[in-house]
Amino acid sequence: MGCSESNDKFVNKQDCFYDVLFKRRDVRAQFTGHQVDENTLLRILKAAHSAPSVGLSQPWDFIIVKDLKIRKQFYEHVQKERQRFEDLLSEDKKKIFKNLKIEGVLDSSLGLVITYDHLRGAPNVLGRNTINEAGLYSVCLAIENLWLAATYEGLGVGWVSFYREEFLSKLLNLPDRVKPVAWLCIGPVTHFEEIPDLERAQWRSRLPLESVLHYETW
Amino acid sequence: MGCSESNDKFVNKQDCFYDVLFKRRDVRAQFTGHQVDENTLLRILKAAHSAPSVGLSQPWDFIIVKDLKIRKQFYEHVQKERQRFEDLLSEDKKKIFKNLKIEGVLDSSLGLVITYDHLRGAPNVLGRNTINEAGLYSVCLAIENLWLAATYEGLGVGWVSFYREEFLSKLLNLPDRVKPVAWLCIGPVTHFEEIPDLERAQWRSRLPLESVLHYETW
Repeated sequence: MGCSESNDKFVNKQDCFYDVLFKRRDVRAQFTGHQVDENTLLRILKAAHSAPSVGLSQPWDFIIVKDLKIRKQFYEHVQKERQRFEDLLSEDKKKIFKNLKIEGVLDSSLGLVITYDHLRGAPNVLGRNTINEAGLYSVCLAIENLWLAATYEGLGVGWVSFYREEFLSKLLNLPDRVKPVAWLCIGPVTHFEEIPDLERAQWRSRLPLESVLHYETW
Repeated sequence: MGCSESNDKFVNKQDCFYDVLFKRRDVRAQFTGHQVDENTLLRILKAAHSAPSVGLSQPWDFIIVKDLKIRKQFYEHVQKERQRFEDLLSEDKKKIFKNLKIEGVLDSSLGLVITYDHLRGAPNVLGRNTINEAGLYSVCLAIENLWLAATYEGLGVGWVSFYREEFLSKLLNLPDRVKPVAWLCIGPVTHFEEIPDLERAQWRSRLPLESVLHYETW
């Protein structure tokens, strides 16, 4: 468990809550390959399912993918998309990118695909009338709930987005109305890095909070 | 503070973390109108700014709106969109909707607008090559971080989406490249309801987790 593991660091409960937020990483390289405990998996799925959603539509589905054959097909596809992206880069960026591990599809013990069903609760989803993407936004809130709960449980999560939606839809036999939003790699990890991978690799640095704050108007 | 307030309920730190997740509500009616403490506001903004983002692009901006004149203009616009939505509803749904409070724009002490800048970190945002919406997804992860941190701090958050993006962009003088994603009402509350407003009003019920779980494929 994320907090009880290191009691000495957490002198009060406040630290514990924020520590989970700040400890969370996009994990690619630290998966041990061990299985995710089934009860833990249910707890983090319950966390996701408790997210806010537009008009209480809960438009998400969760597909738990353990099958190695499916994960290998996805992995191969991701390698192709990785190469396509690399080909677009300047020489400087290419040098960094070549050494970057961008996914743990086969290293983690399970994949979790989260999808969006725009017909859930339709027609007239309360709050989606003027903003069609609001349903997609809800799915992302669920993903962050799951990510934080997993971190709390000591599990790493990595979001893989090097894929074509059509490919993943076909691979998992998704109905036409359903859009894949994320492939998450989930599993026990050796540790959480303190600095995000992309910052450690000098791909990009984090911005100061002040640079994205505005008062009253832009 | 969300957890220390009710020590008796939280026998260990694990309960405290999940309690924040389960206690979080989309708040409309419980705002006291009191000010948000400036240090607390900075803590929840820091929580948002620590969210994962595609290619470490951190494509969000936060606009803190306290000015009552701006909030009133937004409020008036929301009332019009509320009416437009109501006109679409069946008689049964209309009856429920008429009695629903859908926003606390003037009741809460501040508005927070969160936006998406698709040029942040461009070109070649790592992980956005195949999925253009990935940047928008990142903004939503930041919103959920903020929402949970606010809940932890005892602040209510309500997401208002009854608006036209063009209207809000103009009201806040957003650059063309920047898309508004959410108007959040934030402030101290009298209490958090145990059941979501829309479920209490019998607009819609929450789904059982089992109904959205799939194994290996859809």
